[in-house]
Amino acid sequence: MSNQPPPGYAIIDLGKGYSERFGPVYLDRTNRRLAFQVAEQHLNPVDTCHGGALATFSDAMIVAVWPGAESGQAHTPTITLTTDFFAPAPLGAWVEADVELTRQTRTMLFVQSLMSVDGRRIGRASAIYRNPAKSGEKT
Amino acid sequence: MSNQPPPGYAIIDLGKGYSERFGPVYLDRTNRRLAFQVAEQHLNPVDTCHGGALATFSDAMIVAVWPGAESGQAHTPTITLTTDFFAPAPLGAWVEADVELTRQTRTMLFVQSLMSVDGRRIGRASAIYRNPAKSGEKT
Amino acid sequence: MSNQPPPGYAIIDLGKGYSERFGPVYLDRTNRRLAFQVAEQHLNPVDTCHGGALATFSDAMIVAVWPGAESGQAHTPTITLTTDFFAPAPLGAWVEADVELTRQTRTMLFVQSLMSVDGRRIGRASAIYRNPAKSGEKT
Amino acid sequence: MSNQPPPGYAIIDLGKGYSERFGPVYLDRTNRRLAFQVAEQHLNPVDTCHGGALATFSDAMIVAVWPGAESGQAHTPTITLTTDFFAPAPLGAWVEADVELTRQTRTMLFVQSLMSVDGRRIGRASAIYRNPAKSGEKT
Repeated sequence: MSNQPPPGYAIIDLGKGYSERFGPVYLDRTNRRLAFQVAEQHLNPVDTCHGGALATFSDAMIVAVWPGAESGQAHTPTITLTTDFFAPAPLGAWVEADVELTRQTRTMLFVQSLMSVDGRRIGRASAIYRNPAKSGEKT
Repeated sequence: MSNQPPPGYAIIDLGKGYSERFGPVYLDRTNRRLAFQVAEQHLNPVDTCHGGALATFSDAMIVAVWPGAESGQAHTPTITLTTDFFAPAPLGAWVEADVELTRQTRTMLFVQSLMSVDGRRIGRASAIYRNPAKSGEKT
Repeated sequence: MSNQPPPGYAIIDLGKGYSERFGPVYLDRTNRRLAFQVAEQHLNPVDTCHGGALATFSDAMIVAVWPGAESGQAHTPTITLTTDFFAPAPLGAWVEADVELTRQTRTMLFVQSLMSVDGRRIGRASAIYRNPAKSGEKT
Repeated sequence: MSNQPPPGYAIIDLGKGYSERFGPVYLDRTNRRLAFQVAEQHLNPVDTCHGGALATFSDAMIVAVWPGAESGQAHTPTITLTTDFFAPAPLGAWVEADVELTRQTRTMLFVQSLMSVDGRRIGRASAIYRNPAKSGEKT
């Protein structure tokens, strides 16, 4: 596969630490999509994308629907994250997540995504994040 | 905090790729506990353990209750993984997961864990893995 | 509110027992939507729809995407069901669920829905059901 | 099976509406256990306990760990509820849930349970409820 992301994506800076470890992630803010390419560092012992890598990518989906979340400038701590795995993603595959902010309350953001490779679904994610409007508070 | 794991743990080889990227993970098979120390590479933009890192660690909990899962010798693909986040884990903290195989069916393994730092709970995880007895099958 | 369902729905027989207890449920198979009206028997102690009622309604969403599921003729046992609650549904409200079969594997059906009242989202559900093609097997 | 609950349980009033529809639920507050007997009104089309009934029972688990939750006097709205189904529960079975308050934050209560019939696990539940200390707030 191409090492270039699908059209419409631009690389996004998710900061240092674990996000830097994960590797490049690409955002298409207009269409609320997030993408990454499965590389050696994302593989599991059977050479497909590690479940933890897809979970990590899923946790980042908030950046597609909440500007500022990527930098921690608008800190949106994850309350709960669920990732379902439909099919393996091979080395080199571009995993794309279509992200939706399904509901915003005073204290919480409900977000979900469907993950695909070449238009074929490989997983889904559902999460609740703290609404940064309340982030001054301790949970 | 000490850079040595709590008593009873031994480092475990979770293989190359994403697990190697994650960093050292420690297993206490007798007590079905898994541990890691929050390092720079696990941090989020606000300098606590990244949700994706705790989700990745949670995905690995199967190794504490299913021998061979760590190597892929007994491949246990994750079907669904949920991680709940109670409190932040700071740099240097030893995160310990008490893991339980709550039920084993012919096709699935139901596993859950409670994660603590110094005996204070910081999160929980719940997952369903494919029973490797069936792993010759395609899902 | 009207005691008639929104246009496009027809009452569906979900069988005896707990479904009969729940009360009438309406299906719009063309648009993969399921609906019910919040009645006295669905209320919680603070007089809004009980979380268990929305969870029960969510469990039934499979019938909108899998013909025969309603009768048990195509038995689709639930493996896991998650319901998130965004906002309360008052007495008399018509709760509509837009249902999607996000992925079908040889052994599992991944289904999710968004629930609304008058177009305002009140919750979501995500579930995995056993694919009845395999239902002769024990899990 | 006996129509009497296992030792240590007393019937609990969960109020009118959907809880009354569900039927009698029994609490052993000392051991944080909740129980009900699978009756005709809980069955699914294949004559085992309906998934919605187990989900409804799971939603009620908060009463085993939070006094006042049953009456709505301490109102604990459910934010998210997940129920996993391990094995069917037959007519007449006493379903017992061992409930644990895994963590309490300023705004949320994290609760989980393991459900058994005659000591054999049939399911588990995990939920987040709003901490009633904050229930004056809108979410």
